[in-house]
Amino acid sequence: MNEYEGKFIVIEGLEGAGKSSAITLVRDYIEKHTGTKLVCTREPGGTPLAEKMRDLVKIADKTDPLCDEAECLLIYAARAQLIANVIKPALNNGKWVLGDRHNLSSLAYQGGGRGLGDLVDVISEATLKDFKPDLTLYLDIEPSLGLQRAASRGALDRIEQQKLDFFERARSRYLSIATEDESIHVIDASQAMTEVHKDIISALKAMPWLS
Amino acid sequence: MNEYEGKFIVIEGLEGAGKSSAITLVRDYIEKHTGTKLVCTREPGGTPLAEKMRDLVKIADKTDPLCDEAECLLIYAARAQLIANVIKPALNNGKWVLGDRHNLSSLAYQGGGRGLGDLVDVISEATLKDFKPDLTLYLDIEPSLGLQRAASRGALDRIEQQKLDFFERARSRYLSIATEDESIHVIDASQAMTEVHKDIISALKAMPWLS
Repeated sequence: MNEYEGKFIVIEGLEGAGKSSAITLVRDYIEKHTGTKLVCTREPGGTPLAEKMRDLVKIADKTDPLCDEAECLLIYAARAQLIANVIKPALNNGKWVLGDRHNLSSLAYQGGGRGLGDLVDVISEATLKDFKPDLTLYLDIEPSLGLQRAASRGALDRIEQQKLDFFERARSRYLSIATEDESIHVIDASQAMTEVHKDIISALKAMPWLS
Repeated sequence: MNEYEGKFIVIEGLEGAGKSSAITLVRDYIEKHTGTKLVCTREPGGTPLAEKMRDLVKIADKTDPLCDEAECLLIYAARAQLIANVIKPALNNGKWVLGDRHNLSSLAYQGGGRGLGDLVDVISEATLKDFKPDLTLYLDIEPSLGLQRAASRGALDRIEQQKLDFFERARSRYLSIATEDESIHVIDASQAMTEVHKDIISALKAMPWLS
């Protein structure tokens, strides 16, 4: 747990897992509980410069395809920027922070999906040290189902265009890390939305600092 | 030494050390020696995406100042991209590559100047592994003299605007690494340009693969 008065909660999951509606639900619940607005972030991005780094990750450039190592380093650059200029200042001011993705996405996507586990572990440890969310809700879904939902929303970005086995490796990494880290709660996101939301609220209520 | 037929030569030095004229001199010398055009790169940058990362490093954003860790990670993202899409493909094709800065700049500026030595060492090792230039010519100059020369060229970028002690730490790191790595040749860049150029040519001629 962080040393701050406010808490840092993160929503994680593959494309189409239902992160957006989960974020609205959690935001409303926390704001009702604390009586104050929380700070919402997204990754990669969340500051003006980090959003420019996000653009470089998301846009496919056929003449200069982003190599896997550069993708990984860019995402960590954006994360370092977001932590330094948004997340830590908010927590230092006693605010709560709600993140749309954080480090677990890199461990799953770049570590699992891209097969860069060693590089991701090294960079993660060197840049984040012991900073981590107080609670992560991982919305677990079959990649084929998630991608079907994501595709129905419109054009897919460079990451969303990866092949199914990329997302299968990412999901498998999400699940294996979750079994070893009790701050990560796995939510079955293949259920009907009312059931998913019920499970999210239960997970929140189980936190001693939210009861 | 790299496993490639072509060689990778890098020009390093503080602002105002005379890198540009050294690059022209070395380029002409190598092209005359090999009878083929060499590939010239600059860092951070050198590919369309890496140049966009360079812009994020160079431009000062007062509302969202780039934190030191993000600066370091961005520069390594640009380097990974340049190595993957330009330097290694060129070397694989038997070409020679001449770099305006490479990893030694990060060891000196981010490691020494910013005091991020541990982070830089870890990222450097994790991303570059054993890839390194065959020869580095480090143009050594007193920071005060170099900055005076650089300022006379026009407006200074975010890095060039650092205080003198930043460049003094960078120079000290350059020099200490050079004493431990025999592929780095220190050139006294405070001399008259004809003397500097004479020393550069001597250093090139001392390479068995250039004689």
